[in-house]
Amino acid sequence: MTRLLTFIFLSIPISMAFAQGPRARDLGIPLDGKPGKLNAITDVKGVEVGHTTLISGEGELIVGEGPVRTGVTAIFPRGKQYDPVFAGWYSLNGNGEMTGTTWVEESGFLEGPVAITNTHSVGIVRDAVVEWQFNNDHFDPLPYEPDVFWALPVVAETYDGDLNDINGFHVKKEHVFSALDNAKSGPVEEGNVGGGTGMICHEFKGGIGTSSREVVINNTTYTLGVLVQANYGSRENLTIAGVPIGKEITDHKILWDPLKRQEERGSIIVIVATDAPLLPHQLKRLARRVPIGISRVGGYGGNGSGDIFIAFSTSNPGAADRVEMQQLTMIPNDKITSLFEAVAQATEESILNALVAAETMVGKNNTTVYELPEEEVMELLEKYARIEEK
Amino acid sequence: MTRLLTFIFLSIPISMAFAQGPRARDLGIPLDGKPGKLNAITDVKGVEVGHTTLISGEGELIVGEGPVRTGVTAIFPRGKQYDPVFAGWYSLNGNGEMTGTTWVEESGFLEGPVAITNTHSVGIVRDAVVEWQFNNDHFDPLPYEPDVFWALPVVAETYDGDLNDINGFHVKKEHVFSALDNAKSGPVEEGNVGGGTGMICHEFKGGIGTSSREVVINNTTYTLGVLVQANYGSRENLTIAGVPIGKEITDHKILWDPLKRQEERGSIIVIVATDAPLLPHQLKRLARRVPIGISRVGGYGGNGSGDIFIAFSTSNPGAADRVEMQQLTMIPNDKITSLFEAVAQATEESILNALVAAETMVGKNNTTVYELPEEEVMELLEKYARIEEK
Amino acid sequence: MTRLLTFIFLSIPISMAFAQGPRARDLGIPLDGKPGKLNAITDVKGVEVGHTTLISGEGELIVGEGPVRTGVTAIFPRGKQYDPVFAGWYSLNGNGEMTGTTWVEESGFLEGPVAITNTHSVGIVRDAVVEWQFNNDHFDPLPYEPDVFWALPVVAETYDGDLNDINGFHVKKEHVFSALDNAKSGPVEEGNVGGGTGMICHEFKGGIGTSSREVVINNTTYTLGVLVQANYGSRENLTIAGVPIGKEITDHKILWDPLKRQEERGSIIVIVATDAPLLPHQLKRLARRVPIGISRVGGYGGNGSGDIFIAFSTSNPGAADRVEMQQLTMIPNDKITSLFEAVAQATEESILNALVAAETMVGKNNTTVYELPEEEVMELLEKYARIEEK
Amino acid sequence: MTRLLTFIFLSIPISMAFAQGPRARDLGIPLDGKPGKLNAITDVKGVEVGHTTLISGEGELIVGEGPVRTGVTAIFPRGKQYDPVFAGWYSLNGNGEMTGTTWVEESGFLEGPVAITNTHSVGIVRDAVVEWQFNNDHFDPLPYEPDVFWALPVVAETYDGDLNDINGFHVKKEHVFSALDNAKSGPVEEGNVGGGTGMICHEFKGGIGTSSREVVINNTTYTLGVLVQANYGSRENLTIAGVPIGKEITDHKILWDPLKRQEERGSIIVIVATDAPLLPHQLKRLARRVPIGISRVGGYGGNGSGDIFIAFSTSNPGAADRVEMQQLTMIPNDKITSLFEAVAQATEESILNALVAAETMVGKNNTTVYELPEEEVMELLEKYARIEEK
Repeated sequence: MTRLLTFIFLSIPISMAFAQGPRARDLGIPLDGKPGKLNAITDVKGVEVGHTTLISGEGELIVGEGPVRTGVTAIFPRGKQYDPVFAGWYSLNGNGEMTGTTWVEESGFLEGPVAITNTHSVGIVRDAVVEWQFNNDHFDPLPYEPDVFWALPVVAETYDGDLNDINGFHVKKEHVFSALDNAKSGPVEEGNVGGGTGMICHEFKGGIGTSSREVVINNTTYTLGVLVQANYGSRENLTIAGVPIGKEITDHKILWDPLKRQEERGSIIVIVATDAPLLPHQLKRLARRVPIGISRVGGYGGNGSGDIFIAFSTSNPGAADRVEMQQLTMIPNDKITSLFEAVAQATEESILNALVAAETMVGKNNTTVYELPEEEVMELLEKYARIEEK
Repeated sequence: MTRLLTFIFLSIPISMAFAQGPRARDLGIPLDGKPGKLNAITDVKGVEVGHTTLISGEGELIVGEGPVRTGVTAIFPRGKQYDPVFAGWYSLNGNGEMTGTTWVEESGFLEGPVAITNTHSVGIVRDAVVEWQFNNDHFDPLPYEPDVFWALPVVAETYDGDLNDINGFHVKKEHVFSALDNAKSGPVEEGNVGGGTGMICHEFKGGIGTSSREVVINNTTYTLGVLVQANYGSRENLTIAGVPIGKEITDHKILWDPLKRQEERGSIIVIVATDAPLLPHQLKRLARRVPIGISRVGGYGGNGSGDIFIAFSTSNPGAADRVEMQQLTMIPNDKITSLFEAVAQATEESILNALVAAETMVGKNNTTVYELPEEEVMELLEKYARIEEK
Repeated sequence: MTRLLTFIFLSIPISMAFAQGPRARDLGIPLDGKPGKLNAITDVKGVEVGHTTLISGEGELIVGEGPVRTGVTAIFPRGKQYDPVFAGWYSLNGNGEMTGTTWVEESGFLEGPVAITNTHSVGIVRDAVVEWQFNNDHFDPLPYEPDVFWALPVVAETYDGDLNDINGFHVKKEHVFSALDNAKSGPVEEGNVGGGTGMICHEFKGGIGTSSREVVINNTTYTLGVLVQANYGSRENLTIAGVPIGKEITDHKILWDPLKRQEERGSIIVIVATDAPLLPHQLKRLARRVPIGISRVGGYGGNGSGDIFIAFSTSNPGAADRVEMQQLTMIPNDKITSLFEAVAQATEESILNALVAAETMVGKNNTTVYELPEEEVMELLEKYARIEEK
Repeated sequence: MTRLLTFIFLSIPISMAFAQGPRARDLGIPLDGKPGKLNAITDVKGVEVGHTTLISGEGELIVGEGPVRTGVTAIFPRGKQYDPVFAGWYSLNGNGEMTGTTWVEESGFLEGPVAITNTHSVGIVRDAVVEWQFNNDHFDPLPYEPDVFWALPVVAETYDGDLNDINGFHVKKEHVFSALDNAKSGPVEEGNVGGGTGMICHEFKGGIGTSSREVVINNTTYTLGVLVQANYGSRENLTIAGVPIGKEITDHKILWDPLKRQEERGSIIVIVATDAPLLPHQLKRLARRVPIGISRVGGYGGNGSGDIFIAFSTSNPGAADRVEMQQLTMIPNDKITSLFEAVAQATEESILNALVAAETMVGKNNTTVYELPEEEVMELLEKYARIEEK
């Protein structure tokens, strides 16, 4: 995680086994709550994640040629069969896109996968999801009209144009199909992968991160998982376990293009998954707790930020079936608070995991974004009496 | 308007002078309020509309080949220069897509054109709008980073899969560029054009319609214009000027595919433009009056319907400029009610104009959707004492 | 219904048997859908309605003395036992108050009765509902803290200050207790009663109205009922069954105070009840269809109007119990459309029932508001071929 | 601040000069941003604050008699003259009441003072504000109808029933008039005063707190002030400057009634004031940043919490005048981010100020809530290297 990535040979798309490096809690960062087995969104049974990572070219930007530092991440709530999940969404600062939210809000359902990519590839990813759903019978066959199908996919984005030739439109529909086809349960690759490839977070290298929590309600253990594509935040505000890391680490600055950006304009997309039986309006409540977790790391939704969150529940399978009457389960509101805490905790840790996993990247016009210097972070945790014994 | 359209030779894209046929009020339908000069959204100065209409093939559906009955309609709020307008949006029933609304809601601005197409082409249209904006410098050059650009286009849709090979993805980015490049002020083509090509409304042929109203507030005349892509509604509920047309005209039924659809699943996208100086929260109020107009024609936002509306104001040019302080004007709330009425009136008339302009269409698997029989409508208006002397 | 009410002897509070006069459909107004047995909100089993009507004094306004033309209407969703119902709300134009909506939105529950009164008595009614709930054990006893109780009552209003000494604050807590205690199932008094006592609608005398619809879904018959407190609308826009009644009946004008009001500033509160099993987000969808019904009578939510609606479902009893897991039922979204239609139909008919039931009233400074002239209405229905054979 | 308050002789209402004790930053807590002169909401010119504090009785609860530990706090945005301010609101968790928000959302205006009290006194406070406005000509005289007046006051609450005889309804309209009449600029009393009298925060004594920030935008200094009524949070989550204070200080526990509460059920009302010229939709954005500040102290909006926030701007005086056209100013969105930060910072510090100012209180059934032990806090800040040199 300390080598400067100067030569890039990665082909398109990447699909390989990966060896997971240390994660945030391995550094001794004290974090509340009990994570699930993998400490990943895939701890929620049924959730599958796939990445397509696009890295090629270097040096000067030639629009349409590169350098390319982008990708697509796909998240299936309940594997690849068609079975909509209850969902709710919220935006802290809406300088971003998440398609499909109008129907999520109206119907209470997320009907297919969620995909995340760069800002200018939302369209192709969206239509490719439609095509994939059509080709894979991932839709509800109307009993009286088997060939009728329409889809309103949920596709979100953050901006990677500081490192990537974003106006070259390098994401193609095959990349989307690949991320969808390769989505799987198990460990989730973090850092410079998928939609998170070209991301910047608190002026360090950002990207994809994930985490989970186990919550016991009435003697039943529920799992709540989070996945973030983290691309937001100023250095000065970076806080880890209450320690003002960003005020302390003032070097490792981004080597910009001569023209330096002057305002916080990143974004963060957050996916919250749980197997706890919650109704749509309760899932919206979960989505509205994501800012609590972001705040703990130092974010607050600047004007240039697209901070959009969706939460879904894998419980109540078949809830969208065309039956006469749905039989559902719901956790009473007075038991929901521990899930709110879990959202905040898993969001916080997902962002930290993205920061810890991401490696230094050189991109467009040799812009260089450095990874979080782990040893310095550990020293600072020590200095502020906030490091946890392992 | 009475010939059955059996042979279709239209090339792609259509761009021609058109001779406007009779419109709703020409039939003697009594309508409240005073329309603008063209009775079109383009009566609002600066508004430009362009269509690309795609009609080719006939007979049996072969996915990827046709028949094709679709298109794109583009609306520029303030011509083709970059100058965001204040905007607000609302959804009566969100079984549809309008991208970009999260940023409209957050920022109060609509930053570029609005485009409307079919459900499964939203993505390509969205990315094509990004590309067009990039190629045409239709964006805000950050003073300190002239090459930085991102866009969150507003693209909406209604479903044309009953007549069109929707899963053939026939809309290409060139079609979008064409609709954008050819957008112009002046009369607006209605009926089977642009995004409205393959639409069905109250079980008659639907499509694009437009109308406008002039409203005098404090001795100043403001113009409010509406454009609809009308694809909603059951026959039974069709009402014109209070007359139960849909209950009376029970023939001219759609010749379906053997498998007949069983629920109302259409949609309506509505664009409201005005030159009255209104703030974003006031424009949202305008958008929330669109259902009043839809209701008058017999719609009510069925579960399968994507009824999504956006309203913008062309006043306050430069409101998004990066100046030190914006100087704005606003009509006081206590003067806004007449604009609410204008929204309802112009929405109602736009839908009627779409119905009157649209011609019978034969599409996928020879599904045939008939145009509104104008003479019968006039006879019924007569019967119910609701026809207006010309 | 034609006598001018010049001498008023009514005591406070009124609680008597009433003989229901003709209702809207008795006049031959054609109305869609099948009403329930009583054509009232109380057709939904469990719903109880109580009114306290305050009418006293006449002539010149002396603030604090009268004339008094006001009251309170209370609606219990599920009788008087404590058992919250799923609920959702919407506002077409929010120039009004409905307390408690923030918690309805968050929790998905309406926890007690709904009360409606005049604009300046919302507070006393709200606190009186709290006190009544406390005195009547109408709350959830926390198992671990039996004496802990807090309530966030839903209390709404429309303005009766044109007829009533509204700043005299004549509603007292005993009036609220009386409306709550006397709430009952069975026929509902309409017109100049309860919260509707001093209301004006389309410049005729308005007030309380109610209606219901039976809807068959999957062979099960559900009931949906509506109650309105109607105080909105301009004469010119009054429409009945598509007939422009308000344009035709230009006399029977309000005898104002010398100073005549110049803008539409009324309001309408609408309560929608159903026994169909719907979740909170679905009930919000119902609430958002209320404007469709209002539109049919000629309303559109003017700037001065407080048009606020709440919908609840009496199904899923015990849904707020502090159990380990709730077992719920839900009608699938694809079956919900007929309930949307029922909302529009029952709202329309409730308003018409309010207009038909209300009698001419003389109030503050001898302001006189005339009742809808039924015979003229019937003649106009005839003229426009819109009267229904009985 | 360390004496146990066992004997209480305070009369009703309290209105006296007060000597301000140490505030949060006096303890050496490091806090970002530059506060205004008084570090109070009254640093925003025009803002006036008044409290009525009701403390009487002790020992066993006798409903209707006491003990009484409650009050009212009133905040005028622009002094006592009638001149509505632009406003926006948001709720993190809506288990609470803020009346008047529907009209704030619709109109964009806050038309009068904001008042805060206990949960069961919202009604009387609301109607009393109406009466005060009527008596003091604090309303818009319609030019054509000078005696017509209606008001939709904004009144919020948090629950003080753990210390106070909340169902005794001890707040009377005279107490409201007193808080309104005595509202003034200058230093603001904090802690156990006004609406904050009986509040509990992170299981220490809570109450009223305030803070402000100065923000420079384009060489102009704007002031943003916050006032909180803090009654939320669990001990375990209390965090000060990143230090886990609540995990460290496990004594000073509340001496409860034998029956101990088992869930976080408090609330926090937050008022944000600024003189920066912002439109309603921008002020809503400010309100949505309040949770960032709450999160820093350890809150996250538990299910039992009523966390409701309103933000207003004192700029654009006369914006609600009935003129032909309003001339307004607005800070461009791309300059707004520093105000978002100020909201988070001033909210955080306001809560800390409430905690530091509040003194130990004995209330209902001798329930005793201890004040934050300042010396222990300072020692912990030292231990975690987070104390600031003075």
